[in-house]
Amino acid sequence: MAVYTQVSAEALGEFLARYDVGELVSAKGIAEGVENSNYLVETTRGRFILTLYEKRVNAEELPYFMGLLDHLADKGLAVPPAIKDRRGVEIQELEGRPACLIKFLSGVSLSHPTPAQAEAAAIAMADMHAAVADFTLDRPNSMGVDTWRPLFEKCGHSLNQIAPGLHDDLAHAIEHVTANWPGDAFDRCAIHADLFPDNVLMLGDDVTGLIDFYFACTDIRVYDLAVMHSAWSFDATGRSYDAAVGDALIRGYSSRFPLTDVEQAQFPTLAAGACIRFALSRAWDWLNTPADALVMRKDPLAYVRRLKHYAPDLVKHST
Amino acid sequence: MAVYTQVSAEALGEFLARYDVGELVSAKGIAEGVENSNYLVETTRGRFILTLYEKRVNAEELPYFMGLLDHLADKGLAVPPAIKDRRGVEIQELEGRPACLIKFLSGVSLSHPTPAQAEAAAIAMADMHAAVADFTLDRPNSMGVDTWRPLFEKCGHSLNQIAPGLHDDLAHAIEHVTANWPGDAFDRCAIHADLFPDNVLMLGDDVTGLIDFYFACTDIRVYDLAVMHSAWSFDATGRSYDAAVGDALIRGYSSRFPLTDVEQAQFPTLAAGACIRFALSRAWDWLNTPADALVMRKDPLAYVRRLKHYAPDLVKHST
Repeated sequence: MAVYTQVSAEALGEFLARYDVGELVSAKGIAEGVENSNYLVETTRGRFILTLYEKRVNAEELPYFMGLLDHLADKGLAVPPAIKDRRGVEIQELEGRPACLIKFLSGVSLSHPTPAQAEAAAIAMADMHAAVADFTLDRPNSMGVDTWRPLFEKCGHSLNQIAPGLHDDLAHAIEHVTANWPGDAFDRCAIHADLFPDNVLMLGDDVTGLIDFYFACTDIRVYDLAVMHSAWSFDATGRSYDAAVGDALIRGYSSRFPLTDVEQAQFPTLAAGACIRFALSRAWDWLNTPADALVMRKDPLAYVRRLKHYAPDLVKHST
Repeated sequence: MAVYTQVSAEALGEFLARYDVGELVSAKGIAEGVENSNYLVETTRGRFILTLYEKRVNAEELPYFMGLLDHLADKGLAVPPAIKDRRGVEIQELEGRPACLIKFLSGVSLSHPTPAQAEAAAIAMADMHAAVADFTLDRPNSMGVDTWRPLFEKCGHSLNQIAPGLHDDLAHAIEHVTANWPGDAFDRCAIHADLFPDNVLMLGDDVTGLIDFYFACTDIRVYDLAVMHSAWSFDATGRSYDAAVGDALIRGYSSRFPLTDVEQAQFPTLAAGACIRFALSRAWDWLNTPADALVMRKDPLAYVRRLKHYAPDLVKHST
């Protein structure tokens, strides 16, 4: 939510000269993305997002992300691929950082999507899953099921500083959910893995873009829907479940990929896993961000409450 | 340099409906301005800056700033006036903050202006001074010559934490400069009072906008040039003076408003005053911002070094 690396207008002008995109007209640092620096750049030929990758994104993984975006854009999906410079290069360097000039997409991220908007977004996700059937690159999920226990152990009993009993609740939930995690029978493909409302651009009820693919990875296809369901169907505190939005997500997704009986039966486990994943990453950030830092800490308990919705028996102490 | 107040797409859509500006297409929080929240908003009819005024700007003073921008825009100058809504209202409220929808201007702020660019910017400032001859609103300079001693005394001997001897150097400089400050013989008018390169938008050597008028006030006209000269003619550390840029500023401004003999003779005093003003405000911020805060502190000594350039006898200890 900040511009970490300043790019002077002079350096940006030189950078753009590598591309066939016209002359620089305007550039504004934008407060978007978690830990990258982003500029909204206007040239005589159009608008672009310039992203400089800071520490969160591993530069070695950029070819995966950019390859996925190219693949999806080639199939006509509304995603923001990197622009190629005159030599055909997408991943550049600027101010000592990996940097890409990226297609600008219209649309706004909604704070309170309606059921119709949720349905459209779930259909867009399903279209993405259909489009990756012939995508050949692979990336393990850096926040996948195997990573939860090690991250949980790094947090340790400090978890109880967030809420008394959180350590035992999460220990129990991780044990139960990983033991019941679906096996090889479930479809796997490239998934977004972070499709919050923030990461869907819309105009009215139309999806104009899926963005921020920097957690994309190979994992269980329906897990992507479970992440989305846990992110979209609750108020920010995680206390209030909106069944109309939740149902719309399932309905939209199922219109492209009908859920099998076993997927339906396992959906609460997948959604509980999504809640564990975000509760843990938020807890880690919470324990490692000073309370008076200017970065806003996101409440881990908002995901523990969601976990309780999907798996009431797993949360006994902390909410 | 941040977005302090979040505006949801839904609230923004409702806000824009007050105006005759088309439908919302895109909105990005931008890292611009010191302590306001700004969004770059695109509609079906154009682009705009949405500003929510945070604590730095006194809401009671907005009519002065907006009146000045209207006056300058009516005379054809490249400044960003507020857009009127359907009822003719410019100053609105949004998310509990005073808010204006403002004309978007093309152009980029330069980090290293050339002499030709500096000359064009100084001409644009002179054009602004000519255009306010019949501007009738008045605002005292909140960082003017009378405010330096009280701010200096608030900083107190803590100044020596910034550099040993800084307290005595500034005490001496304030005493000398205020004693020699020009009187009523100098033209006074509405001045920008903060025309750093950041606040001038350019395309090539053409000025496309003067922006950020939130320090504008009634004060000595040539003091505005002195502020600009001290801001543009040095490297960021204040150590290295660029005579070609400094001369270009004087040449450009003089092409519209030739400096009188007494203005020329007093120019070093005015520029020394500008250095005191920015050294003091930076020192105050420095002493009141924790070193580990995410806000970047600007080095007060960069202005003490400039002060030494204009008035070598006044700085004996701290640089």
